[in-house]
Amino acid sequence: MLEHLPPEVTVFEVGPRDGLQNEANFVVTSGKVRLIEVLAEAGLTKIEITSFVSPKWIPQLADGLQVATTVKLPPQVTTSALVPNLKGYELARKAGLRAIALFMSATETHSKKNINKTITQAMVTLKEVAQLARQDGVKVRGYLSVVFGCPYEGQVNADHVAKIVSSLLEIGIDELSLGDTIGAATPLNVIKLVKLLSTTLALNKMALHFHDTRGTALANVLAGLDAGVTTFDASVGGMGGCPYAPGAAGNLATEDLVYLLESLGIKTGVDLDKLVTCGQIAQEILGKQLPGKYLQAALAQRSGPTAKPRRETNV
Amino acid sequence: MLEHLPPEVTVFEVGPRDGLQNEANFVVTSGKVRLIEVLAEAGLTKIEITSFVSPKWIPQLADGLQVATTVKLPPQVTTSALVPNLKGYELARKAGLRAIALFMSATETHSKKNINKTITQAMVTLKEVAQLARQDGVKVRGYLSVVFGCPYEGQVNADHVAKIVSSLLEIGIDELSLGDTIGAATPLNVIKLVKLLSTTLALNKMALHFHDTRGTALANVLAGLDAGVTTFDASVGGMGGCPYAPGAAGNLATEDLVYLLESLGIKTGVDLDKLVTCGQIAQEILGKQLPGKYLQAALAQRSGPTAKPRRETNV
Repeated sequence: MLEHLPPEVTVFEVGPRDGLQNEANFVVTSGKVRLIEVLAEAGLTKIEITSFVSPKWIPQLADGLQVATTVKLPPQVTTSALVPNLKGYELARKAGLRAIALFMSATETHSKKNINKTITQAMVTLKEVAQLARQDGVKVRGYLSVVFGCPYEGQVNADHVAKIVSSLLEIGIDELSLGDTIGAATPLNVIKLVKLLSTTLALNKMALHFHDTRGTALANVLAGLDAGVTTFDASVGGMGGCPYAPGAAGNLATEDLVYLLESLGIKTGVDLDKLVTCGQIAQEILGKQLPGKYLQAALAQRSGPTAKPRRETNV
Repeated sequence: MLEHLPPEVTVFEVGPRDGLQNEANFVVTSGKVRLIEVLAEAGLTKIEITSFVSPKWIPQLADGLQVATTVKLPPQVTTSALVPNLKGYELARKAGLRAIALFMSATETHSKKNINKTITQAMVTLKEVAQLARQDGVKVRGYLSVVFGCPYEGQVNADHVAKIVSSLLEIGIDELSLGDTIGAATPLNVIKLVKLLSTTLALNKMALHFHDTRGTALANVLAGLDAGVTTFDASVGGMGGCPYAPGAAGNLATEDLVYLLESLGIKTGVDLDKLVTCGQIAQEILGKQLPGKYLQAALAQRSGPTAKPRRETNV
């Protein structure tokens, strides 16, 4: 194990979008802008900053246009936004974004419950947007959710996932993020699915998006690295929770991911100490403690000299 | 990766001792007894049930003798207790225990701060107890803490650890658990240390004791499995916290460990559903939520039908 690690990995920050959309507290525009800017200062170069989904569905991100036109970022940072349809795409263009993300479910039931469309219906919309984006020279990331397990259908057939991946490639996406929406992935099924999909989707176009719902996120990252994946999604502080199990952990925390990768000698370009400060700011703007473990351990250390052990024989 | 997994693994439950000693809330004897009995019912066969350290240091476990003489367990379960010295050993024998655990630090500073003895001084005491235990036919487990990092000395030299391991083997321990006391282990240093130590300590005598302080515990388990280790310590619900970073996560949760192992096709003999009930009981007797992730996800699922997604485009 770990003999064939990549020299560098791209950490794709989804916190300002996927994280904030699943937090109950509304964050004011200036707070979002500040968070995005400090994330870039920490060295993250791929940041999904908002979505242009109807505020009726995602009121948390109703200020997407304002956020996108206010943030000041260095040129090496690529910002993107999730767009559900042509209307959303137009807003993304109005915001001057050069990259967008499109969303698809891997199961019919999740698709129906989530966006009230069948997979086929959703694919028609995605195709329209992707074609326009291609004409405009806008990069398109796809999200395929529930690939490792569905809250409604349970286990998801890998060949079924492979067919949807082929369709998404046909409509012209540049990168595909495989979403473990309910945190059901385990190292063995990560390796199996990546191997299967890599026959149609090049590894350098594949991203893995893990949730830490059952504590396996970093073990899955190890498996993904071993299978040749070099892009991983994460959310600062683990913002976002699990939309299907309130109270349970959700998105893999960016600090945990960067800590693991750097410990493996893999370059991420991210300054872990600055990233902890981003997590601290995320906690401030949300007014709550976030679940990221490295974050909490680092903040506990920052809050004073090394704590005294509470008693002897601590193993 | 994951090509050479063992068919079965021993999960060593340390919650009733290492977990409870680091929880602020005192648990009444009947609560402890109940927890130990349900852990055995869930299939755990190695349970460290208490310690015989002075109540001055660990008031939480002052009722060790009562706990040990009250629990009713099936014959396949081996119970043990941590003993710091001959006095503790006598209590363990009085309690009828057939297995004990001895404690040692891997760094001088941790040893001094933790038990107010140098490593050499501590080894003298351990030798006395181990000799007596051998005469009595009592099994001896050793704990060597801070092997992957020390809260006082930082990085710990692996050759230095190897020397202490040799001394512990000389005094006659049957098994040695390598403790990542502050959660500093990462997959690469797990593999390196296991490989180094395996030249003197047989892999079937080695256990790994991870803390999830920085979220890497299960990734470290994968690394440990890959290096050939087949015994892992864990604490039900992740009881115990991190003694050096209050508020941060501590002991790896037994449910998270069993979930990962079973997902890899490795037999543990533990019923995960019953184990979740143990975690629920642990939360009840402590009167607080525990950090175990699988536990929280499972309890959220048990508390009702699958929760509705809060809004569309959940990745």
